[in-house]
Amino acid sequence: MDVGFLGLRIMGKAMALNLLRSGFRVTVWNRTLSKCQGLVELGASMGETPAAVVSKSKYTIAMLADPIAALSVVFEKGGVLEQICEGKGYIDMSTVDADTSLKINEAITNKGGKFLEAPVSGSKKPAEDGQLIILAAGEKELYDAAIPAFDVLGKKSFFLGSVGNGANMKLVVNMVMGSMMNALSEGLSLAGSSGLSQQTFLDILDLGAIANPMFKLKGPAMIQSSYPPAFPLKHQQKDMRLALALGDENAVSMPVAAAANEAFKKARSLGLGDLDFSAVHEIVKVAGSSGEAK
Amino acid sequence: MDVGFLGLRIMGKAMALNLLRSGFRVTVWNRTLSKCQGLVELGASMGETPAAVVSKSKYTIAMLADPIAALSVVFEKGGVLEQICEGKGYIDMSTVDADTSLKINEAITNKGGKFLEAPVSGSKKPAEDGQLIILAAGEKELYDAAIPAFDVLGKKSFFLGSVGNGANMKLVVNMVMGSMMNALSEGLSLAGSSGLSQQTFLDILDLGAIANPMFKLKGPAMIQSSYPPAFPLKHQQKDMRLALALGDENAVSMPVAAAANEAFKKARSLGLGDLDFSAVHEIVKVAGSSGEAK
Amino acid sequence: MDVGFLGLRIMGKAMALNLLRSGFRVTVWNRTLSKCQGLVELGASMGETPAAVVSKSKYTIAMLADPIAALSVVFEKGGVLEQICEGKGYIDMSTVDADTSLKINEAITNKGGKFLEAPVSGSKKPAEDGQLIILAAGEKELYDAAIPAFDVLGKKSFFLGSVGNGANMKLVVNMVMGSMMNALSEGLSLAGSSGLSQQTFLDILDLGAIANPMFKLKGPAMIQSSYPPAFPLKHQQKDMRLALALGDENAVSMPVAAAANEAFKKARSLGLGDLDFSAVHEIVKVAGSSGEAK
Amino acid sequence: MDVGFLGLRIMGKAMALNLLRSGFRVTVWNRTLSKCQGLVELGASMGETPAAVVSKSKYTIAMLADPIAALSVVFEKGGVLEQICEGKGYIDMSTVDADTSLKINEAITNKGGKFLEAPVSGSKKPAEDGQLIILAAGEKELYDAAIPAFDVLGKKSFFLGSVGNGANMKLVVNMVMGSMMNALSEGLSLAGSSGLSQQTFLDILDLGAIANPMFKLKGPAMIQSSYPPAFPLKHQQKDMRLALALGDENAVSMPVAAAANEAFKKARSLGLGDLDFSAVHEIVKVAGSSGEAK
Repeated sequence: MDVGFLGLRIMGKAMALNLLRSGFRVTVWNRTLSKCQGLVELGASMGETPAAVVSKSKYTIAMLADPIAALSVVFEKGGVLEQICEGKGYIDMSTVDADTSLKINEAITNKGGKFLEAPVSGSKKPAEDGQLIILAAGEKELYDAAIPAFDVLGKKSFFLGSVGNGANMKLVVNMVMGSMMNALSEGLSLAGSSGLSQQTFLDILDLGAIANPMFKLKGPAMIQSSYPPAFPLKHQQKDMRLALALGDENAVSMPVAAAANEAFKKARSLGLGDLDFSAVHEIVKVAGSSGEAK
Repeated sequence: MDVGFLGLRIMGKAMALNLLRSGFRVTVWNRTLSKCQGLVELGASMGETPAAVVSKSKYTIAMLADPIAALSVVFEKGGVLEQICEGKGYIDMSTVDADTSLKINEAITNKGGKFLEAPVSGSKKPAEDGQLIILAAGEKELYDAAIPAFDVLGKKSFFLGSVGNGANMKLVVNMVMGSMMNALSEGLSLAGSSGLSQQTFLDILDLGAIANPMFKLKGPAMIQSSYPPAFPLKHQQKDMRLALALGDENAVSMPVAAAANEAFKKARSLGLGDLDFSAVHEIVKVAGSSGEAK
Repeated sequence: MDVGFLGLRIMGKAMALNLLRSGFRVTVWNRTLSKCQGLVELGASMGETPAAVVSKSKYTIAMLADPIAALSVVFEKGGVLEQICEGKGYIDMSTVDADTSLKINEAITNKGGKFLEAPVSGSKKPAEDGQLIILAAGEKELYDAAIPAFDVLGKKSFFLGSVGNGANMKLVVNMVMGSMMNALSEGLSLAGSSGLSQQTFLDILDLGAIANPMFKLKGPAMIQSSYPPAFPLKHQQKDMRLALALGDENAVSMPVAAAANEAFKKARSLGLGDLDFSAVHEIVKVAGSSGEAK
Repeated sequence: MDVGFLGLRIMGKAMALNLLRSGFRVTVWNRTLSKCQGLVELGASMGETPAAVVSKSKYTIAMLADPIAALSVVFEKGGVLEQICEGKGYIDMSTVDADTSLKINEAITNKGGKFLEAPVSGSKKPAEDGQLIILAAGEKELYDAAIPAFDVLGKKSFFLGSVGNGANMKLVVNMVMGSMMNALSEGLSLAGSSGLSQQTFLDILDLGAIANPMFKLKGPAMIQSSYPPAFPLKHQQKDMRLALALGDENAVSMPVAAAANEAFKKARSLGLGDLDFSAVHEIVKVAGSSGEAK
C-alpha cells in the first residue's frame, strides 16, 4: 500500500518509520528536506513538496507542529491542494483546533479529495511503539481505507463522526486531565502541609480506585519540583480555555475545570508556561514554612 | 495467634472470616450477638461484651460503623477500657475522624494499652478478598505485631506515624477522588453537549494516561443516571469539607477541591445525599434540550 | 451646533431628545423611519439614510442595538461610509465588542473621517435624565469636540485612549458587577437558610461599607423571585466570558469571576438567559425544604 | 440611666465616652485598670472587677477583644457570673462566634439574668461618631431596654431573634464583603493588564450601580499596594471559613465565596494574614512584566 507522509519531527518520524517497517511504501516530505535522509536510507521515497507527495500517493498522512504548519502545507505554493483530487485522501493527524480542520476539509473536498482529521493521544514513546490512540473524524470511507495504517500507528482508533469532533474530543479529554492534575497537586500540597509523607500518599493513590498512569508518572517529579516539558503548561491552559469556550456555546457549567484553568493561568502569569503542565504545582503548593499568620 | 474482633457488619464479618481461615484464633463480638453465629460455627469463640473479648485476646481489632459506635465500644459499660491493660493492643480499623481516634488513643494508653488507628481504603469486595489498603498510625510496636493480621486482611499496609495521620491520609485521598469525580462528570457533560458519544469518550479515557478504575466503573452508570450508593454522596461531601478544613489550618489554598465541594453541596441540597457520590453528575449535566437561551 | 443621530430605540430617542432640548440642531435617522416623527415634530430634521445624515452633519452619533446593527449602518448601501470624509466625525455610542469598534474605526479613518467609540454605562432612566457615564476612546480631537454633546447626554465622560479601550473598560466593569451579583445571591441564600430575615440582611448591607445601588434595587426583587429583564442574563454571561477571554490573553487569573461565570452559564442552561441577570439567584438559592440529607 | 461598661480598648473607650456624654451614669472596668483613668476624670465610676461593675449596674455592656476575653470576663474569678442575677442584663457587643455567645447566654440565664449578643458593624471612626450598626439577638425585653444606649452608640440597631443570629448575620455580611473584595481586585488586575488606567476604572465604578464606600476607600490603596490593617486578612478569611461552614450545615452551595476564600487562604499562606484584607490583591494581581509565556 502506498502512503505519503508529511512532517518528520519527533512524532512524525517515528510514525513514518513504523509504516515503513510494516511494509507500506512511504513517500516522505519534511520542510527541512535533509530530515528525510534517515527514512530514505531505510527504503522510503522522498517528495520535493507536499504536492509531489500527494501526486504519488493515494493517501497522504500529515503530522505537523501546529495549526499554522497544518494550513501552510495545504494552502501554500507546492502544497497539498495543488494535487489533491478525486480518488485521493488526506489525513491530518496534527493537533489542531476544529476551525483549522474545517478550513482544510473544505478546501480538500472542494477539489474532490477526501479528508479525515485524526489527532492522536499519546506522545513520543507511544508513537515509537505504535501505541497511539487515534481520534478520527470526517469521511468514513477514508477512515475505513486508513485502518491498515492506523493499526500500525496506534493501539486503537475511533471514528467520531463529522470533522471537528476529533479536535473537540481531544479538548474534552485534556480538560479532564487538567482538572485531575490540579486535584493531584492539591492533594500533594495538603498531604505535605499536614505532616504526611507525600511519597506515601502517592503510593496509596496508586493502589486504589483512582490509580492512573499520570499520577504515577508525574507525582514523584512534582515532589522534586521537576517539570521537564512533556506537555507544556501553556498548551494545557490553551486546551482548557478552548474546552471551556466549547462548553460556553452550549451553556455547560463546569466550575471545577474553570477553577483549574485559573490555576494554570496563574502559573502562566508567573512564567511557567514552557514547563510541563504539572508545574501548576508551583502555584498550588504551600510556600515555605515562615511568615504564616494563622 | 489470638485476636479479638469487634463489629461484624458487612466489612467486619468478611475480615474476621479471613482471619479465621488463615489460622488465627478469633474471639468475636457484635452488638447484635446473633450475628456471631456464622463465625462461631466456623470455629470462632464469642465474647459477651467488648471487655470480654479484650480480656481473652492479646490484640483486639474493631471494625465499627462510625465514630459514635467506635467511642461506645471503648467507653461504655462492658467496653474495651474495662479490660485493656499493659501488654494488650487495640486496633481500630473503623473510619473515624482524627479527633475520635485521639480520644480513644488517650483512654487506651492511659490504661497502659497500646493503640493503633488503621482505617482502610476499599469496600465489601476487597474486604472479602483480603485486598484492603490499610492506613495505620499510632504505636509502631503494635503495628509490627499486627503485620501478620494485616497481611491477611489487606494487599498492603502503611505505617503513617502518629495517631490522626491515618484519618487525615484518608481525607486527602478522598478529596482527590471527589475532585476527579467532578472532572469526569464535567467531561461527560461537555462531550454529550458537543455532540460526541459519551461512551466513546469513556473508551478513550480508558486507554490513556488518566485511565483509572473509578472512571471505568462509574462512568457508564453515570451515563445511565444510575447511582446505587457504594459511597454515599453525603459522606464524600463530609470528607471534602473536613479535608478543606484540614487545609485551612495550614492555609493551603485548594480552589479545585473547593469548587468540587460546592458541587457536592448543591447535590446534597437537591436531596441526592444518600445516592452514590457519582450522583453529583445530576447537577453537572446539562438539563434537557429545551429552553436554552444562547 | 449640528449633530446627526442614528438609531432611535429607547435609549437613542431619549438621547436625541436631550440634545434637541439643549439647543443642538439634530438630524435623525432610524431604520423604521416613522420612529423619527416625534422628534421631527419637536424640531429635528430627518435623513433618509445614514449617509444622508452624515452629509448634513459635522458630527454623527450612533446608538444602535448590537454589533450587527452597528456594522450595517456603516457598511451597507446608503451607510455612513458613503459620506464620511475629512472634517467629519463619527461617534458610536452602541455597546459593541472591541473587534467591531476596530473594524468601524479602520473604515472611517481610511475615508479621512474621525472615529470615537463611546459606549455608555446606564440604561433608560439615566439616558432620559442625561446622567449616562460615557466611556470614550479613539480620536482625542473628536472627543474634545464632542464634549458639549457629552455634557448633555451624561453626568460624566472619560477619554480612555485608543479604540477598543471603551469596550474593554465596559467588560471589566460588568465582570465586577457579575461577581457582585453572585456574592449578593449567595449571601441572600445563606441568610435565608440560616434562619435570618433576608430583608433585614439587605437593610444591614445597605447601611455599611458595601452598600451600593444594585444591591438596593435588585435585592428585594430577588427575594420575590422577580427578574424583569433590565440587563438580560445572557448578555451578562457573554460579557463575563469576554472579560475572562481578555484576561486569558495576559494570563490574569480570576477565580472568583470564573466561578461567577459558571453560575451564569448554569442559569443559561436552565433557560433563564432572557431574564434579568439577577435571575442567577434561581440557581444559587436553596431548593425547597424537603429531601435534604444532611 | 445606670450602665456598666467592660473593656476600654479603642472601640470600647469611644463607646463608653459617648454614653457618658449623653448623660448615662457609667461604671467602667478594664483589665488594665489604669485605662479607666481618662473616663473617670470625665465623670465615670470605676469597678475593680467585672463583678463589681455588674453589682452596681442594672445593665452591663461589654466590648472585648475576642471570644477568649469575652469568656474570661464572664467566667473567671471576679467575673460577671458572680453578680449577675434576676433583674440585671448583660449585653455583649464583642465580635464572637455563635458558640461563644450561646455559652455565655446559658450561664447568664441560669443565674436569672438576661442576655443579649450585640456585635457591631463598623470600626473606630463609626464608634467615635456613634454611627455603629448594631446586630442584637437574644432577650427581646433587654433589647427594648437597651434602645436608649443603642441610640447613642449606633445609627441603627436590629433585633435579629435568638442568640447566635447576631454572630451569624455578621458572618453573612462579611462573606459578601470578602467576595466583593476579590471581585474588585480581579477587576483592578484585569484593567491594569489590559492597558486601562486603574484609577479611571475606580472612577467609573464609583459613578455606577455598584459604587460603594469600600471600593472607594480601598481601591486607591490597592493600586499603591498599601494595606494598613483596618480588618486583618486572617480575620476576614476566618469569617469566610465560618460562613462557608454555616452554609455547609444546610447544604448551601456558594462557589463564588468558596473561590474567594481560597484566595484569602493563599494570601495567608504567603504571610499576608496581618495586613488588611485588601492585601488579597497581592496574590490576584499580575506579577511583573517579565517571563510570561503566552
